[in-house]
Amino acid sequence: MQPTTTTAESPIAVFDSGIGGLTVVSALRRELPGEDIVYLGDTARVPYGGKSRGTIERYSEEIAALLVGEGAKMVVVACNTASALGLPRLREVLSVPVEGVIEPGVEAALAATVTGHVAVLGTKATIGSGAYAHALQAARPGIRVTSLACPLLVPLVEEGLFEDELTDAALHRYVAALRSGDADALVMGCTHYPLLAGALARAAGPAITLVDSAANCARTVARRLDQLGLRAPSGRVGSLDLSFTDTPDNFLQVVRLALGLEAGEVKVRPVPPLDQ
Amino acid sequence: MQPTTTTAESPIAVFDSGIGGLTVVSALRRELPGEDIVYLGDTARVPYGGKSRGTIERYSEEIAALLVGEGAKMVVVACNTASALGLPRLREVLSVPVEGVIEPGVEAALAATVTGHVAVLGTKATIGSGAYAHALQAARPGIRVTSLACPLLVPLVEEGLFEDELTDAALHRYVAALRSGDADALVMGCTHYPLLAGALARAAGPAITLVDSAANCARTVARRLDQLGLRAPSGRVGSLDLSFTDTPDNFLQVVRLALGLEAGEVKVRPVPPLDQ
Repeated sequence: MQPTTTTAESPIAVFDSGIGGLTVVSALRRELPGEDIVYLGDTARVPYGGKSRGTIERYSEEIAALLVGEGAKMVVVACNTASALGLPRLREVLSVPVEGVIEPGVEAALAATVTGHVAVLGTKATIGSGAYAHALQAARPGIRVTSLACPLLVPLVEEGLFEDELTDAALHRYVAALRSGDADALVMGCTHYPLLAGALARAAGPAITLVDSAANCARTVARRLDQLGLRAPSGRVGSLDLSFTDTPDNFLQVVRLALGLEAGEVKVRPVPPLDQ
Repeated sequence: MQPTTTTAESPIAVFDSGIGGLTVVSALRRELPGEDIVYLGDTARVPYGGKSRGTIERYSEEIAALLVGEGAKMVVVACNTASALGLPRLREVLSVPVEGVIEPGVEAALAATVTGHVAVLGTKATIGSGAYAHALQAARPGIRVTSLACPLLVPLVEEGLFEDELTDAALHRYVAALRSGDADALVMGCTHYPLLAGALARAAGPAITLVDSAANCARTVARRLDQLGLRAPSGRVGSLDLSFTDTPDNFLQVVRLALGLEAGEVKVRPVPPLDQ
């Protein structure tokens, strides 16, 4: 990958398999209002959650290479599945720093648990990768982790069924068993899940604290920019640029309203394959 | 696209966005046991049901071009979404005949309805395309069509929840209103839905006949092969070759068991972009 020259005024690139990563953009806007953010959601190939490591690595690298080639000073992988499976490869091949959502989520979970038993909800690919469990155990040996793949939640969120009996029924099936155990922190290990925070809190019960990695990811990004001397000058007003690989459907409007995101015209752009 | 020489012994190419199209393969095997079938499921980019016409056309053309380049005598689009949105373009650019699942489904629905009121269930893209409604009205002017986009059904089927309270609750929401109307034929306008036939029949009630386009598609393919003198010689035993663009997950096993499909090793192969 060709080296690029970046400055503190260069944009932060944020990518996701689709639209869910806007929860991370929202947290970044609050934490870092002076930064320009360029977001690319891979709606032409969404979802990543049921796909293989090789495919997710390839898609992540194609998108990150495009955004770094356009001058991004940092890449934020705002997708748990791509963070779990694609991030190691991105750190190998990219010339700019890369942050994901798993490490910040792990940090927040460790700060939240008292019992030392953490539950993690995610897509099949994220849970199957073991990324959260490994990172939690590496950071605090002896910690207990209950991992739950919840493949129906993304479709329910994408239908906008944040408060709905169908969503409650699916959540009940996934998390009801946690009520009889001693897990006291629940990592929402998919960027879609914070939109279900209300329903999830009801299903999990009052003894469990929900952990949203988006806010922690934004703090990690801020810290890293400071370490590298790459934070945008203070007083600057950052811009937000949203693009997708396919025309986004209604869900984009639902999410932008839910998050209060202000952005200009939304663009659709292709991602060239790596070998070209 | 380069011209290819095909014979009656050339294979039939069947493609789908993923695994659901195996319901069509199963019907083709029963109807045409002497034909070699080469199946390619685009699991690296599944699902198509929420994507745009442009993206679906591009994916369909990439896959069909690959299979025709390898000598297929006919292309069967075993995916309602790709049939609804990609088929016109494929018929323009391919050098071999192309059959889809919409026209056979329409034919079967017209044979089934007495009241002249047909309900169609499908993905957002299929329903949004209006392909079923237009084809029904073109074939029988004055027919009434109730079209229902059911985006949660594919994820429920892919979880293997064929008989499950969650599936019943989702189906109830989609089709309960039909019980008070006079629709008497219900087109299962997605290749996944025949796996829900039992639950769907309960939800729709006894006055509604379910229409499965897979069996009718197989009969249409047989008729077309005869017209073109391309049917495999009688007495021949056809082979079945299954491949996917990404490692298929457990759902493949579920479907193969449900359909009783015998096939050799399942392969994973990439689909080159068109411009290469």
